[in-house]
Amino acid sequence: MGVGEAMSGTFYGLGLGPGDAELITVKSWRLLSTADVVCWPVGPSGAALARQIADPFMPDNAIELPLPVPFGAAPADLDAAYADAAHRIARHLSDGREVAYLCLGDPLTYGSFALLAARLAIAHRVVAIPGVSTAQAAAAALSRPLAQGTDIIKVLPANADPDRLQAEIAAGDATLVFLKAGRHIGLIRRLLNEAGIRDAFAVAHLGQDGERIVALKEAELRSPYFSTVIAFAGSRAP
Amino acid sequence: MGVGEAMSGTFYGLGLGPGDAELITVKSWRLLSTADVVCWPVGPSGAALARQIADPFMPDNAIELPLPVPFGAAPADLDAAYADAAHRIARHLSDGREVAYLCLGDPLTYGSFALLAARLAIAHRVVAIPGVSTAQAAAAALSRPLAQGTDIIKVLPANADPDRLQAEIAAGDATLVFLKAGRHIGLIRRLLNEAGIRDAFAVAHLGQDGERIVALKEAELRSPYFSTVIAFAGSRAP
Repeated sequence: MGVGEAMSGTFYGLGLGPGDAELITVKSWRLLSTADVVCWPVGPSGAALARQIADPFMPDNAIELPLPVPFGAAPADLDAAYADAAHRIARHLSDGREVAYLCLGDPLTYGSFALLAARLAIAHRVVAIPGVSTAQAAAAALSRPLAQGTDIIKVLPANADPDRLQAEIAAGDATLVFLKAGRHIGLIRRLLNEAGIRDAFAVAHLGQDGERIVALKEAELRSPYFSTVIAFAGSRAP
Repeated sequence: MGVGEAMSGTFYGLGLGPGDAELITVKSWRLLSTADVVCWPVGPSGAALARQIADPFMPDNAIELPLPVPFGAAPADLDAAYADAAHRIARHLSDGREVAYLCLGDPLTYGSFALLAARLAIAHRVVAIPGVSTAQAAAAALSRPLAQGTDIIKVLPANADPDRLQAEIAAGDATLVFLKAGRHIGLIRRLLNEAGIRDAFAVAHLGQDGERIVALKEAELRSPYFSTVIAFAGSRAP
């Protein structure tokens, strides 16, 4: 171990679950409670859902470091924002501080953590603590098995190429979980209708106050960004 | 609420995470700590991994109810075992006791909980508390993003029809998570090789003592039942 490494803290990505504060794991809670620095992404609207979800478990004496990330901005602007965030985190790590990054759901499943980890792992220790992901929390909210036996599960970002989504839907029976479905409810409904799949639900504000579960055909065309659609196209579906 | 319902307890499926005891959520821990009855499935070998993982969080005064389930038995024998287990649980629920069922990973993702819940929900309140699933825990163990941006994730039971697995692998770039890969390492390796996918890893004893992560090409042909293979066929894979 070099002189620099001896001083360096660890960068932890802590999965919080997708909404309900109690879905944090004991492991993430333990590491959060002893962190020297706690950081989280702040979107263009100033919203910081991860910070809000972690609130009951925030340590008293940690340095709080909100990190502005212009989600949806041009790639160059996003890249500059992540470079700046990584630089600010790295300074704390180099000073020997343990840094916890709050992640909605799971840190390594479509999260901003991976972009920071890729930059920081070059010179620092980086550890991801897994969390409950949207697919599992949505199935629990619906009280429906996500998959049984030899069922296949597909997790599909709703902003993927529509032709690709169509091909995956057509490929055969599976449970289909569409993430970030908010602006894409109409597209998903059309693709599922074309495939004859009617057993589908939209979930908004999963695990939060105002959680709303409706049949997909009744979902509003402009639902919240983090809405989820689950379609049961497996042989066990009613 | 009828007279019968007033007395009835709730049947909880508590996700424990796939190995590491600390991956239990605060919510599952809270419900486990106040349960009147705690039950779990016991396989033909007598193994009760769920009970073992929950050990640090087991309440002192609960009734412990191991439930024999002949995993891998003929359907009629399995059905009889689940009917018997549901009957034993229902008696406690009818007496007004809260019953917690310990689930590896997530209760509604390929778990035995769904089979009990289907029987018990007819007359009792049934609630699933989601848990960290194998895909997320395996990605954390590998320190690799499971998916980013518009990547697709497919969760594939290794005992599904091999032609179907082949078709899903061929359908296009995705992160492929093969569950219960133990006896199927050779098949998975062949299918991935045929598709030109070489960036793949096998994980055994995930989150437990003796956790072992190897490149798929180095994995033993007969790995433990709950082994997982992750293949990165997305454009971001090295």
